Amino acid sequence: MHFKTRIALMAALVTLLATVGCGEVQPSADKPDKEAPESNDTPDVADNTPCRPNLSPLPPSGEGMWPWDGLCDLDEDALKKRGLKIPLKDLWTPGVGGLARAAVGLRGCSASFVSKDGLMITNHHCAFAGIQRNSTPENNLLETGFLANDRTEELDGHGLRAFVFMKQTEITEQILRDMPKEGSDLERIELIEVREKAAVKECEKKPNTRCRVSRNNDGLEFILLENLELKDVRLVALPPQSLGEFGGEVDNWQWPRHTMDFTFVRAYVDKDGKPAEYSKDNVPYKPEAHFKVGVGGVSPGDLVMVVGTPYRTARYRTLASVRRDLEWYYPTRLNLFTEWNGVMEKVCADVPESCLPTTGMVKSLNNALTNARGMITGLERKNILEKKAKQEKEWQKWVAKEPERAARWGTALDDLTGYLEKSDEGRDRNFLIRYILWGNKLVGFARTITKWHSEQLKPDEEREPGFQDRDRDNTLDDLRQAQRSLDPEADRRILAMFLGRLGKLPQSERIATFETALRGDYGEASIKRFVDRLYRGSRLLDVSVREDLFNAKMDRVKGSTDSAIKLAWDMAQEFDAYDDDKKARNGAFSRLRPPYIESLVEMRGAAFYPDANASPRISFATVAGYSPRDGVWHTPLTTLSGLLAKVTDKKPFNAPDNVVKAIRDKRLPFADDKLGDVPVCFLSNADTTGGNSGSPALDANGRLVGLNFDRVYENISGDYGYNPSLSRNIMVEIRSVLWYLDAVIGADNIQQELGVK
Amino acid sequence: MHFKTRIALMAALVTLLATVGCGEVQPSADKPDKEAPESNDTPDVADNTPCRPNLSPLPPSGEGMWPWDGLCDLDEDALKKRGLKIPLKDLWTPGVGGLARAAVGLRGCSASFVSKDGLMITNHHCAFAGIQRNSTPENNLLETGFLANDRTEELDGHGLRAFVFMKQTEITEQILRDMPKEGSDLERIELIEVREKAAVKECEKKPNTRCRVSRNNDGLEFILLENLELKDVRLVALPPQSLGEFGGEVDNWQWPRHTMDFTFVRAYVDKDGKPAEYSKDNVPYKPEAHFKVGVGGVSPGDLVMVVGTPYRTARYRTLASVRRDLEWYYPTRLNLFTEWNGVMEKVCADVPESCLPTTGMVKSLNNALTNARGMITGLERKNILEKKAKQEKEWQKWVAKEPERAARWGTALDDLTGYLEKSDEGRDRNFLIRYILWGNKLVGFARTITKWHSEQLKPDEEREPGFQDRDRDNTLDDLRQAQRSLDPEADRRILAMFLGRLGKLPQSERIATFETALRGDYGEASIKRFVDRLYRGSRLLDVSVREDLFNAKMDRVKGSTDSAIKLAWDMAQEFDAYDDDKKARNGAFSRLRPPYIESLVEMRGAAFYPDANASPRISFATVAGYSPRDGVWHTPLTTLSGLLAKVTDKKPFNAPDNVVKAIRDKRLPFADDKLGDVPVCFLSNADTTGGNSGSPALDANGRLVGLNFDRVYENISGDYGYNPSLSRNIMVEIRSVLWYLDAVIGADNIQQELGVK
Repeated sequence: MHFKTRIALMAALVTLLATVGCGEVQPSADKPDKEAPESNDTPDVADNTPCRPNLSPLPPSGEGMWPWDGLCDLDEDALKKRGLKIPLKDLWTPGVGGLARAAVGLRGCSASFVSKDGLMITNHHCAFAGIQRNSTPENNLLETGFLANDRTEELDGHGLRAFVFMKQTEITEQILRDMPKEGSDLERIELIEVREKAAVKECEKKPNTRCRVSRNNDGLEFILLENLELKDVRLVALPPQSLGEFGGEVDNWQWPRHTMDFTFVRAYVDKDGKPAEYSKDNVPYKPEAHFKVGVGGVSPGDLVMVVGTPYRTARYRTLASVRRDLEWYYPTRLNLFTEWNGVMEKVCADVPESCLPTTGMVKSLNNALTNARGMITGLERKNILEKKAKQEKEWQKWVAKEPERAARWGTALDDLTGYLEKSDEGRDRNFLIRYILWGNKLVGFARTITKWHSEQLKPDEEREPGFQDRDRDNTLDDLRQAQRSLDPEADRRILAMFLGRLGKLPQSERIATFETALRGDYGEASIKRFVDRLYRGSRLLDVSVREDLFNAKMDRVKGSTDSAIKLAWDMAQEFDAYDDDKKARNGAFSRLRPPYIESLVEMRGAAFYPDANASPRISFATVAGYSPRDGVWHTPLTTLSGLLAKVTDKKPFNAPDNVVKAIRDKRLPFADDKLGDVPVCFLSNADTTGGNSGSPALDANGRLVGLNFDRVYENISGDYGYNPSLSRNIMVEIRSVLWYLDAVIGADNIQQELGVK
Repeated sequence: MHFKTRIALMAALVTLLATVGCGEVQPSADKPDKEAPESNDTPDVADNTPCRPNLSPLPPSGEGMWPWDGLCDLDEDALKKRGLKIPLKDLWTPGVGGLARAAVGLRGCSASFVSKDGLMITNHHCAFAGIQRNSTPENNLLETGFLANDRTEELDGHGLRAFVFMKQTEITEQILRDMPKEGSDLERIELIEVREKAAVKECEKKPNTRCRVSRNNDGLEFILLENLELKDVRLVALPPQSLGEFGGEVDNWQWPRHTMDFTFVRAYVDKDGKPAEYSKDNVPYKPEAHFKVGVGGVSPGDLVMVVGTPYRTARYRTLASVRRDLEWYYPTRLNLFTEWNGVMEKVCADVPESCLPTTGMVKSLNNALTNARGMITGLERKNILEKKAKQEKEWQKWVAKEPERAARWGTALDDLTGYLEKSDEGRDRNFLIRYILWGNKLVGFARTITKWHSEQLKPDEEREPGFQDRDRDNTLDDLRQAQRSLDPEADRRILAMFLGRLGKLPQSERIATFETALRGDYGEASIKRFVDRLYRGSRLLDVSVREDLFNAKMDRVKGSTDSAIKLAWDMAQEFDAYDDDKKARNGAFSRLRPPYIESLVEMRGAAFYPDANASPRISFATVAGYSPRDGVWHTPLTTLSGLLAKVTDKKPFNAPDNVVKAIRDKRLPFADDKLGDVPVCFLSNADTTGGNSGSPALDANGRLVGLNFDRVYENISGDYGYNPSLSRNIMVEIRSVLWYLDAVIGADNIQQELGVK
């Protein structure tokens, strides 16, 4: 299934972009990527990625998202000096496994096992869709929170999935062998895709396995990742949203923070221990590894390790690429999302029923707005363009210094920069197409269904990634679940907004189908007429119609009189061209970036970590405050008293009464001796990004002491470069979770299972 | 001259309430007070306040506004342990003097001598009126700043005055001797006033001397203060307002702070060394003492001493009194000033010419609004009512414990509380009268002139304080200077606002004169008719008319047909009743508070400092940060880089180009080694309040290292009680001043005079 379309559908489902602190991070529209890791079945002891002991100097504490399989390459003594108390091999040994396997992926998030019976902890916002799906106006778990008193009371997560990482295999040689030198970038990437799909297909022959190929830095390495997919994940215990999202949009990306963003879920399997869809007869999954809880929590200066699947970073970009993002991409997002946000506010004011289903989208837009602002401010504050220019000068000198280097990489940077400059034609049009497919459900549905059927005409292995047989269930599920976040009036106004924006492009860049339908008139009345006709003539907003068309034969879809389906067929060529353009860019990058990155690694001579790409990583860090600005220091732990001081009777600071009462009454089990209070959140200098939400934070002995859920505002632009002074992530301190279980809801069962009572 | 009326006139002149950070602090309307110290001629070695060595434990570092004459009573060893390096007697010895004499009073502010030639440094906002009076649209010193290249270029401060403290004499016995036990509180206070005036008159027989009686805690002690008045004070060097008030209202009361709030002025005297009005022939004043500049500035943990004339505090209040302030006084201010602010915004939008003259009033209102908000938040945050209730219970127990105590103070608290409750009738009416006289110029002028003439009918010694012969020059000057902050349209609208508010009082509380004039109709149209008629019939907004009437014979004033003068005569009885009511309250407090305070002092058994009352004080403190809230620490020094990071092209962050350039170019003389930057502002835990603006901060050796100019928001309510965790004042670090003189304006002459070049 096409990535962007898939994202559009998933938005409602996994609230990838839609959740506080989840921090959707897509530094550039250049490259598609999977938003969550996928899967595999049994661990395989044989492995082709042995350790390559490497005593290259480590970067400063905190920096580095280290692939698990590369842990054994790191300078263990240096990490021990920083406080690490367990052998790296216990964390992870390639081909064998280790404690890290307790850290799993959710769609768009991370989580971890905390008992031998499949109990997991993740962020409240990562389980949000599952909580929402179990809520009704009469019994709203978002308002009340939830506690299953025993396993029979645990609730079907309706689509929550966990992915247990089993192993990875480097297949670079297999993907790139005999790659023809001639041919277009589109042909190149299509050949790569064919080979990747073949590797995935082979890998997924194991039952219940989801595989994907992770391209490290656009193809410097190709890594086949295998995950076991657990399909029955249930809700166990969670606070009300007023605590799980305490501070809401006001505190999002901010410190000091007092959000208790956690939820317990449990994975179930069939009686034979195999992954299976929800069934009453299923039994708790027995994970190979789980984290013990570190009841001592953290103190300033402690080593912590954050384990999870960060989504994407942009650490090795060229000056030209960063300039494009800073000067065009983020300002363009800021501009679009600002208008879009206004549209959403107005529709919610005009049509009160529209407010609830669009909550997720509004959160997503707000989050993206803050992100764009933070990126621009942060990149400007760190003078990134100046620094990149300086680095590239140094690089040029370094390359010129030795003939061998010059021969190998002499043109690498110029090639990349040159390509970027000439390939940017039509970027405003492509930007709008991308967000129409994400933001307008009707057009998104129609595109998914028509493209699905077009791709069906090809042999499975030739279809585009996301549109293969393996993607059928997910795609159908996405088409169904989208109903929850669908509001017809909002959807019409969003389309109208995009049409208005298309009309402001030069005529040559507009979308021909719309241009014809509107007869070039992008005035309000004309757009309204067109939108009214389109929505009147389509039944795709009805979930059963979508399902029916998705499952129908091609000729019925081809001959459909549904106005949206007809529109999608009319626009197929333009959408395909957009997809091809993106693919061609990826083809070019797969050709041009690896040599440049290779030279950078060589020049730096330090331990290297590839850009994040939703593969399993670990960051070794220190609990530490920071100075957001002159005269201010953010101390690294907050407390329940601090939470209480923020409480008002209004959202987002309306903490639950039982929480307020427990604090006022000084019922403070798990309080920290020095603070005389229970820590709520803490900061470390761990290297994280979107996708790390729910990541376990481990202490020096590998015990769970926190849950990552956000970064600080000053670190939004950290995706472009780690900054020891400002790169800080925000975590829930485990003692606040234990305090809540004990002093607020008396969840003895969970405490016993965690081994703390 | 009557205090409130005087304040009304002074507002424009000294911008007492009208300046950023000056922090008008009048915790209660109960008690009139002088806003600035007054004066004396030659030091007198004979003195009746010998040291009373007292090793009572000192409060924690920072707490205490110690009267200079009481310094020798303090535990010097304890202060030395805190870092003090000079003997206390060098700072001040009663009857002799000392280094502290270099700290002088301005009207409403503090300042200090920094050279043997009468050069002084104070806050930019303390010299604001003088700067404004030297500015024209073509040559606006507020925009350009100013530097006199030699003494001939120094500019007449037009009314800037400095008061050199000479000595104090305790005269409690003389004031209270044979005080009749019977008689009303009004009679009591009038007798006290007569005796105070006699003491002042005697004291002011010395030429160029201004004296006043300071009532410590409403009459626990009466102290006669003698000051030498220097009448020719000139502008020497000052930054543009964009630096001197950098951050403006946005940063007011806030940390981190980057305001370079300083100005150099110089005192001149006649050729014989005697104070004299401005004359070209005057010569620089040679002060007895001046502070050397401490070019090393401060570091965290350093001892600093803040010397100056804090205006008023409320440290020893009863529960009932604090409750009145928290529940009625501050909310009432908040309510009035919010509406008033709206009136000012509207008049400035409607009538652009009104914006400039009303700037001072608008600043004053904003400042007072922030103050009221900070008071309410702060008092609530510190649970002051609960604490006071607890303290009073403890006091009751303590008093009951010994018969002697019970006999002496048994009813002291109940008497005070009981009085307060029954004396509060008509407080809303009195509150409005107070602010009509402050805020509406026309009525204020008329009241001043008519009361002046009424009082003239009495022998000088029987006239009310502020209306004696000694007050003639100041009163006339105030009537003149008020013209600068006068806008007729704003003045009309302010009166209309007050009339609207009077109409909302119960009929019995309204002002009869207005009630009659309006025939009880407080509708908009009726008020407009009345105001139009009043302003049409008065010429008091013309400065020469005011002067003429002030200097006229009583019968001309009595028979004046000016509508405002007629109104003031009509209202005389009501205004007099208001004045008498205030006096009676002071009479009651002078009877009831001293015994209670005395018992508190006895109970605490620690070194005692009286509430601030605009008499010379010193605070021994430490350079220290603080936590404004959970998860945040304010570090105690800011830097030029921090200033640069705040700069925008818009007020109040539009720092001058030459400042920005010098920072960008890294021209950083006087940089701190550790910070690698020049400190701009710093925090200490010194005990300060309004009136301390411009106070020198001295290092352990008595060298000038900073200038106090504000407190932090969390310390607004510190007036009611010192808090070691939150009581922080904000100072300009001297190195930023030296940096500005050197790197920005190249003021070699000033640097040489300061002995730093």
